Amino acid sequence: MLQLGEQFAPIAQRMADELQTVQAIFADELRSDLPCVNELADHLEQYRGKMLRPTLVLLSGLAVAPDSQLTDEHHRIAAVVEMVHMATLVHDDILDEQDVRRRTATINHLRGNEAAVMLGDYLISHAYHLCSSLNSQTAARLIADATNVVCEGELLQLANRNNWDLDEETYFEIIRRKTASLCGVSCKLGAHLADVDPDITDQLYKYGELLGSAFQIIDDVLDLTGDPEIVGKSLGKDLEKGKLTLPLIHRLAQLGANDRRTFVNMIRSNDHEIYSTMGALLCQSDSVVASQHHAEQLVDQAKSQLIDLPDSSAKAMLLAMADAVIDRDF
Amino acid sequence: MLQLGEQFAPIAQRMADELQTVQAIFADELRSDLPCVNELADHLEQYRGKMLRPTLVLLSGLAVAPDSQLTDEHHRIAAVVEMVHMATLVHDDILDEQDVRRRTATINHLRGNEAAVMLGDYLISHAYHLCSSLNSQTAARLIADATNVVCEGELLQLANRNNWDLDEETYFEIIRRKTASLCGVSCKLGAHLADVDPDITDQLYKYGELLGSAFQIIDDVLDLTGDPEIVGKSLGKDLEKGKLTLPLIHRLAQLGANDRRTFVNMIRSNDHEIYSTMGALLCQSDSVVASQHHAEQLVDQAKSQLIDLPDSSAKAMLLAMADAVIDRDF
Repeated sequence: MLQLGEQFAPIAQRMADELQTVQAIFADELRSDLPCVNELADHLEQYRGKMLRPTLVLLSGLAVAPDSQLTDEHHRIAAVVEMVHMATLVHDDILDEQDVRRRTATINHLRGNEAAVMLGDYLISHAYHLCSSLNSQTAARLIADATNVVCEGELLQLANRNNWDLDEETYFEIIRRKTASLCGVSCKLGAHLADVDPDITDQLYKYGELLGSAFQIIDDVLDLTGDPEIVGKSLGKDLEKGKLTLPLIHRLAQLGANDRRTFVNMIRSNDHEIYSTMGALLCQSDSVVASQHHAEQLVDQAKSQLIDLPDSSAKAMLLAMADAVIDRDF
Repeated sequence: MLQLGEQFAPIAQRMADELQTVQAIFADELRSDLPCVNELADHLEQYRGKMLRPTLVLLSGLAVAPDSQLTDEHHRIAAVVEMVHMATLVHDDILDEQDVRRRTATINHLRGNEAAVMLGDYLISHAYHLCSSLNSQTAARLIADATNVVCEGELLQLANRNNWDLDEETYFEIIRRKTASLCGVSCKLGAHLADVDPDITDQLYKYGELLGSAFQIIDDVLDLTGDPEIVGKSLGKDLEKGKLTLPLIHRLAQLGANDRRTFVNMIRSNDHEIYSTMGALLCQSDSVVASQHHAEQLVDQAKSQLIDLPDSSAKAMLLAMADAVIDRDF
């Protein structure tokens, strides 16, 4: 999880306990009668990260109705959104042939692209399967709405690979669809399952969506400027794939034609020493600061969505998580 | 569609009309506000084949209640199962490195593996999305059950690649899961939406499952012995990928240790001239006949599931389709 201050220890501990329940549902849902399936699914452990989306489901449920208990449906939806998210991670690691040699330890590297495709499909299928076990057709519809939009975001990103004229508007559209929509629906469903007013569920959606966009901007900044030892994954992946992100778009817009060409050639170099130099140069420019500032603005907007909620430790943690999205180096 | 006799012209024409409605729902569901998504989705046209699974939904609905009309939900579920099936084709092309399917370049060949993965995901997501628009939680649950099993079948197949000791039992388990389960659920949902007795829906499931297994056996025979001009895709792909199918398993079981080694080396040659020779040799052995005979037995069992249904042109067409699954060269 994101790092929060000491004062959040009790609610953070409660979340950790609730997430244990979610993980048990997750593991239970994926278990197959076929040993070869279970063996492959064991590889998913390496993809487990901050559990951001399940945490959003649970905290949203608590924040909108602090006097109620979380239901079993909350835990199941929390497992669903984590499955969907993990499926996107597994499928994101599937690469065109020329990229394969650059990567290590991902499922496609260990077991081949084909196993990674199928394992991702297995996750998606079980996500919908678990979702269809709820008594709420709304949940199924909202999850499928969100996954439609996530796929569109991925396809829009793919269509703009090596597009050096990508503008900020399209970038924001990509991250809104591919990342923010699932965060939004996580919060919305957490609230919806607590049976609150639709205005409140819409505010929670907005909170999650804005937080998700901010989260992705910081992820993109870290891919350029982070310390791989701290971030815990190889960096420069966006550059490798010709994916322009906010700091790059911002920097390119400042350059004249010649410098622009040089900059684009650095991106196209596929050379990680050059990428390190670029990261250092970006840190010296105002492009990283401008990107972080944009993320901060989104976080402020996100937090303002929670203004109508009663005070509670869950609400306080949602507010703190929004700040922690910005204030992180991993 | 599969080729049927003259006497089926009226019901076949009705099916063709109903399938137009299904295709309109299919196209409508996939339409995006993003031009790049629509452009990619246009490639799906090349994957449209016999529309076997939607036909099974519609005919099953008619056959169990010949005096009722098909509902809008039948058409939607028919579109859902076609989307699921098409997603497996798109993702199978990543699995099998298929360069040619239905005589045109595949999506992964044209646009890269990543686009193919994402487009398959987009199809799956929209399948569940459309499914969640029904008033039936049962439909969503049954579809997700089936896709779970389809993924397991694909993973079991993958785990047995280059397993020259693959036995018939495991082969039947693979095809039951990866192919037969979706055919089974297509028939079951067609019946379920016509609101009939659960015994009847179970019989329809069994009919579809048995027909699906027979269909896959014949597909596998055609991959070894078919005429690529007629089948419409490059053949020998199962051999290339070290996938043992029924005729090969049958033949291997007849051979002594030395001949077995020679035979396995022919499979591993990755040489399509050798594959042609193998196909010809298999046709001369009794292994192709035995496989066809097995498929015929499954078709007979499938047909016997329909014994309780009232006579109707839809029932007659289901019976004829079962025969047509065997009696085809494409």
